[in-house]
Amino acid sequence: MVSKSKIKFIKSLQVKKYRKQEQSFVVEGAKSVTELLHSDFEIVWLAGREDFITRHQVLLDRKRIETVVATESELSQVGTFQTNDAAIAIARMKENKPPMLNETYCLALDDLRDPGNVGTIIRTADWYGIKTIIASEETADFYNPKTISATMGSFCRVNVFYTDLVSFLRTSKLPVYGAFMNGTDVHEVNFGKGGIVVIGNESNGISDAVGQLVTQRITIPRIGGAESLNAAIATGIVLDTIFYSKK
Amino acid sequence: MVSKSKIKFIKSLQVKKYRKQEQSFVVEGAKSVTELLHSDFEIVWLAGREDFITRHQVLLDRKRIETVVATESELSQVGTFQTNDAAIAIARMKENKPPMLNETYCLALDDLRDPGNVGTIIRTADWYGIKTIIASEETADFYNPKTISATMGSFCRVNVFYTDLVSFLRTSKLPVYGAFMNGTDVHEVNFGKGGIVVIGNESNGISDAVGQLVTQRITIPRIGGAESLNAAIATGIVLDTIFYSKK
Repeated sequence: MVSKSKIKFIKSLQVKKYRKQEQSFVVEGAKSVTELLHSDFEIVWLAGREDFITRHQVLLDRKRIETVVATESELSQVGTFQTNDAAIAIARMKENKPPMLNETYCLALDDLRDPGNVGTIIRTADWYGIKTIIASEETADFYNPKTISATMGSFCRVNVFYTDLVSFLRTSKLPVYGAFMNGTDVHEVNFGKGGIVVIGNESNGISDAVGQLVTQRITIPRIGGAESLNAAIATGIVLDTIFYSKK
Repeated sequence: MVSKSKIKFIKSLQVKKYRKQEQSFVVEGAKSVTELLHSDFEIVWLAGREDFITRHQVLLDRKRIETVVATESELSQVGTFQTNDAAIAIARMKENKPPMLNETYCLALDDLRDPGNVGTIIRTADWYGIKTIIASEETADFYNPKTISATMGSFCRVNVFYTDLVSFLRTSKLPVYGAFMNGTDVHEVNFGKGGIVVIGNESNGISDAVGQLVTQRITIPRIGGAESLNAAIATGIVLDTIFYSKK
């Protein structure tokens, strides 16, 4: 049984201001909570159906997590999912720490506003082994429940560092790739061992200030009539080309 | 000013049952309504801000569309968008007509449940010039407002035919490609001039019955830790590889 005060607390964590204040966020559903349990995030509280808790009892005990048994309807009521037949957990946010960029690939998000898009981009980055994402301050919050949910557990393996993207790119020595209408065909680019791939805002693309720091303009060539590709789709295509390009 | 009965009618079209009954659907926002105006869809009614209507007056007159001037707050109240500073329209659904498949590429959606995913897939298909999508009966509705919105206007250029996918694939003579864990590396496949690319359900992938009709199993190789790719992301990567493969 989840107490009324806990329900209120969990609901407050849907709002960025309160997440920041409490340095805590919520994870929902079997897949995400299971990944959370196996991650290095500090979990402070978990409510789950009896079968979920039994299945993870050893880990829950070892990590000394406060655990509450809840029904499916309670779990759905507490969280943002329409249905949740497994678990919900509260975890501590990690420090917003600047990454050490070595000669690998990372992504830079230039004011991506949609939490679902950001989550899908994190999941896609994780598929290609990318561990670091740099995000402008205006980018949708990593700890937004919609972002966490769309990552499908990849929030445990990919770090997102929020910062002034322009200043960050200015100090970086890696090549900076960005998608524009008039860039080089992405399939013809000789991608090196590492670089930063900038993903632009859903409506406006890459901002002027960030665009000036792009060292290689790339384009995904279009065959049909759509005006643009969704930002997460473009990310997937560019990453697949970088890692599997025949050049 | 939008009448109360019209508001009620528009709201009813958010529900599939009523869309089917009325053979009508709703299109919202500047981008989508503008594309609708230039398409061959029959538009029966349009409400727009004065500047939007003035900008499209010639077309509205030529097509003899019943037009109403509305404020931004009215447009947002009537539709599903949080904000809409342009227009909303009601159009007639097209007949669910079996496509003539010649030697090009088309997509087959095997129980894709998320309207946003289906819309993004339609937009991606349109980017690569694909004009035909076959969808199982359980696939999210083309005319769902979330689908229409996610297509970003591509609903005007891509036809989706809903049918029994298994029966359809059985009669087709084109190669059928489908993504599985144990398929051939998509970058190593010799794609021909045409074929059907099957996209599986978000949770369960391609169903057994459809899987048996796949003639070439393909795989997007994974480098990192994510268990799977989002269905729309996988679609983008496969299509880009088909059309720009170096093989």
